[in-house]
Amino acid sequence: MKKEYHIAVVGATGAVGAELLRVLVASGRSAGKTVQFHNEPVVVEELGENSFDKIDIAFFSAGGETSRRFAPTARKAGAVVIDNSSVFRMDPDVPLVIPEINGQDVKQHRGLIANPNCTTAVALMAIYPLHRAFGIRRVFAASYQAVSGSGARAIAELKSQVEAAAEDRQSPARVYPHPIAFNVLPHVDVFLEGGYTKEEMKMQNEGRKIMHLPEFRASVTCVRVPVYRAHSVAVSAEFEKRVSVEQAREVLAKAPGLELVDEPLQNRYPMPLTVAGKDNCEVGRVRIDCALDNGLAFWVSGDQLLKGAALNAVQIAELL
Amino acid sequence: MKKEYHIAVVGATGAVGAELLRVLVASGRSAGKTVQFHNEPVVVEELGENSFDKIDIAFFSAGGETSRRFAPTARKAGAVVIDNSSVFRMDPDVPLVIPEINGQDVKQHRGLIANPNCTTAVALMAIYPLHRAFGIRRVFAASYQAVSGSGARAIAELKSQVEAAAEDRQSPARVYPHPIAFNVLPHVDVFLEGGYTKEEMKMQNEGRKIMHLPEFRASVTCVRVPVYRAHSVAVSAEFEKRVSVEQAREVLAKAPGLELVDEPLQNRYPMPLTVAGKDNCEVGRVRIDCALDNGLAFWVSGDQLLKGAALNAVQIAELL
Repeated sequence: MKKEYHIAVVGATGAVGAELLRVLVASGRSAGKTVQFHNEPVVVEELGENSFDKIDIAFFSAGGETSRRFAPTARKAGAVVIDNSSVFRMDPDVPLVIPEINGQDVKQHRGLIANPNCTTAVALMAIYPLHRAFGIRRVFAASYQAVSGSGARAIAELKSQVEAAAEDRQSPARVYPHPIAFNVLPHVDVFLEGGYTKEEMKMQNEGRKIMHLPEFRASVTCVRVPVYRAHSVAVSAEFEKRVSVEQAREVLAKAPGLELVDEPLQNRYPMPLTVAGKDNCEVGRVRIDCALDNGLAFWVSGDQLLKGAALNAVQIAELL
Repeated sequence: MKKEYHIAVVGATGAVGAELLRVLVASGRSAGKTVQFHNEPVVVEELGENSFDKIDIAFFSAGGETSRRFAPTARKAGAVVIDNSSVFRMDPDVPLVIPEINGQDVKQHRGLIANPNCTTAVALMAIYPLHRAFGIRRVFAASYQAVSGSGARAIAELKSQVEAAAEDRQSPARVYPHPIAFNVLPHVDVFLEGGYTKEEMKMQNEGRKIMHLPEFRASVTCVRVPVYRAHSVAVSAEFEKRVSVEQAREVLAKAPGLELVDEPLQNRYPMPLTVAGKDNCEVGRVRIDCALDNGLAFWVSGDQLLKGAALNAVQIAELL
């Protein structure tokens, strides 16, 4: 028996929304489902209270403001909201879910489920299976984040700055505070009081909630790099138990949603160019951490529009 | 009284050699000195045993092979060799010197002084003053390394790949094993048995020697990024003593060869684009590390052709 679902995608014209539609349609996951577009937040506003009538699942990916304003409307109308913004993630009544890690948390939803931060999701895809095997205590991480994480305008900004450089002229920085072409910016999201950015604290805060590990510590530096698509994260991780590279590789090779790409002598390791467009995240450069006693260093890359956003949201919907 | 020095630059046509000449000449540091060029290793070979007659200081920056072959010749002829390659750095008879840190080690030279690895030099410019104040134990670091670190051919490779991308064609990877344009490569220098690269182990190995700290631990991931010039490093550092951001900023602001650029709310932090061409390294994003008890996280950028190579070599020569 085929059940029919009515789905709304709020923010369908954005970078994540486009991927959401692609994942829903192209992968055949939406067979028998009716996809309904609300391209502009304004349109949603005009539709008002009735926008979500007969909608079963509403994907929100139009920024925090839209989620804050319209998620309650969608819930009231009986839709389950899967929200890609950070607005509700730390709300104790809202499950924050990576299906491969805490899929069972979906059951506790009250009409709203949050999708995690993209860099956090990519890193946890490797951290969590290692945690299951060795018990994670803390991580030190530095990210290499693609401009598509800032949306379509950021992609255009990198492109126009690179073109301008080829002609020895300058193209202004608008999305970012400084040029991103041929530069790296240690600045993703807004700065908080202690000097970390909001983005940097997400791995610790969201990681604790997703892994059910209130003691988990994560010190992260988030950096925007001139890459169009896919985030990478360099990780040093400390565990409770003794680890070996062989055991770690075995664990990672079996982990769902993850591929072990770790043949450095053949120049094989995860990279944004090769992981872009792939559902699975990739992990490699696995080695015993030389500054930790029970530690591993490794490198994860993942398409942050897919596992970090659209794919994960659709996977949550599938759990419902 | 003005003393005249005769100087040889081996590898003067390379990226570092060009900077060496610029630092020597443009800064007026070479006033009264005679600069003598040996543009090609072949020329040096032809000149043979007599190449370094009457030379006081010979800068070597033409790769490990040239240093290995011709540094002994230069020494025998009475020149003091300042070598930018990694060949002699860990030799216990060879001082490895960053003048701001262990300038006094120059005195022990036996005709050869080694210049440190560029990423190590940039990171230590911030790590060492903090060590003096708080006692460094270990660091976790991830680098964002510019293509100029691989020489002029790598600069051309990034340029041609970016141009090709603008015309929707591909330009082959020759210097690097994969495209560097719009990509990041967790691969700098060759892989060692344990899974680290040679480059990654330099911060621990050279850091121990330069700071006279045999217990210093450093877990590093070295990553090539599509930036033309200047390396950056994200660092988490653990100290013996309690640290505060205020004390750390004070120490860093006073450190020689370093500038504190740390006003995140005004979007001021070190970046490759702004530090390129500058003698001083820059440090910012200073914050209490949230995964360490006595720890700081920070971000350093520096022109690796200057402090990481040419400038440091000339500073060593000035100590002689």
